[in-house]
Amino acid sequence: MIGSKASVINAIPDRWKYLKNVIIVKVKHSGDKTTVYARPLARLIEQLQRLPGVGPKSAQRLALHILKRPEAEVEALAQALIEAKKQIGLCSVCFHLSAEPVCEICRNANRDNNTICVVADPRDVIALEKTREYKGKYHVLGGVISPIDGIGPEQLTILALQRRVNQQKPKEVILAISPSVEGETTTLYIGQLLKPFTKVTRIAFGLPVGGDLEYADEVTLARALEGRRELD
Amino acid sequence: MIGSKASVINAIPDRWKYLKNVIIVKVKHSGDKTTVYARPLARLIEQLQRLPGVGPKSAQRLALHILKRPEAEVEALAQALIEAKKQIGLCSVCFHLSAEPVCEICRNANRDNNTICVVADPRDVIALEKTREYKGKYHVLGGVISPIDGIGPEQLTILALQRRVNQQKPKEVILAISPSVEGETTTLYIGQLLKPFTKVTRIAFGLPVGGDLEYADEVTLARALEGRRELD
Repeated sequence: MIGSKASVINAIPDRWKYLKNVIIVKVKHSGDKTTVYARPLARLIEQLQRLPGVGPKSAQRLALHILKRPEAEVEALAQALIEAKKQIGLCSVCFHLSAEPVCEICRNANRDNNTICVVADPRDVIALEKTREYKGKYHVLGGVISPIDGIGPEQLTILALQRRVNQQKPKEVILAISPSVEGETTTLYIGQLLKPFTKVTRIAFGLPVGGDLEYADEVTLARALEGRRELD
Repeated sequence: MIGSKASVINAIPDRWKYLKNVIIVKVKHSGDKTTVYARPLARLIEQLQRLPGVGPKSAQRLALHILKRPEAEVEALAQALIEAKKQIGLCSVCFHLSAEPVCEICRNANRDNNTICVVADPRDVIALEKTREYKGKYHVLGGVISPIDGIGPEQLTILALQRRVNQQKPKEVILAISPSVEGETTTLYIGQLLKPFTKVTRIAFGLPVGGDLEYADEVTLARALEGRRELD
């Protein structure tokens, strides 16, 4: 290591001498893992770094925290990881995350079978459920139409939705898809597809509650104006 | 749930009617977990929330990410957790994290036995090792003296350090403990204890490299002045 470092540094012409320190720092940084951490710790840090939003620093912090916890607690976490992965699949009706073939929401007889709320992702179902306002059923598309990423209607659960609408004959299909370009495309596509069979609505876009008119972006404001309603 | 919510709301006098919405929001928020997540997912989110710096939102994000990953990857993470916890203990010589009875640094014959660098925590060893400047041995105290938290010298590995200095007879003991009130106490305590037997030094405190004089706090600046050295 020291040999190769020296040879890299000697290869630098004198007029770039100020660069030497920069390069030393770089060389020092590579290969940190091998010597600094005991092997099982290094492996844990490496695995934790694969999680979203976890960089080398937080991976180290998490790993050192885990080493301090009692063994039972660490095992509970490991067990929870494996069990969640093994037991949770997609509901065969609505494609929401579920530990059973048909999810809790679809099985719930108290929920209104006459409305289907169409969302892009399971996390949208979770967000809507947290409002406790919606009492109908859901349909999770598994994404939005995005030709650039090679995602067409066939890659999503749109065919299953169409079939479900034909069988179940809901009174209303609510499209709750984020208003990005791809989201709009998806909304329009599904709207066209289902309009002949049922009433299709979409959620309102406008000023967020607690939001300040002054700070809202133009598109949101335009949407809020467009979606205005008579006072009652 | 709905019953108790209604009774809470009815108990509010009319002049505080505007409070009703606030309370409804609160009631809605409690008990989210039970209905929104499938059980194994809820358990995983709960476990992830025990990690430092992971709140309910990031726990949900991490859990949903994990569900999307291949089973082998999730198992590798679970395995790494259990193995790190099972295999990593403390080095019997220096009390750094180690997968073996004596850690890699203590076993390394190329490292200088004549210097012992005393730090509070294993993460300090990792930080110092990353500099690749230090080639001696370490001693991890396992904390700093803090009477308020009930941590005296006996709760730390100070006795072991004293014994080690008497046996190993190092030429220098470097104290590398953060300059908090407790850190200073610890530094002074160990300094008094070891001075009769060996040379005791402490790391320099001053302006961080890349730091701006203007933005440095007074204590740091005072330390930097105090620790000034003649130009060579």
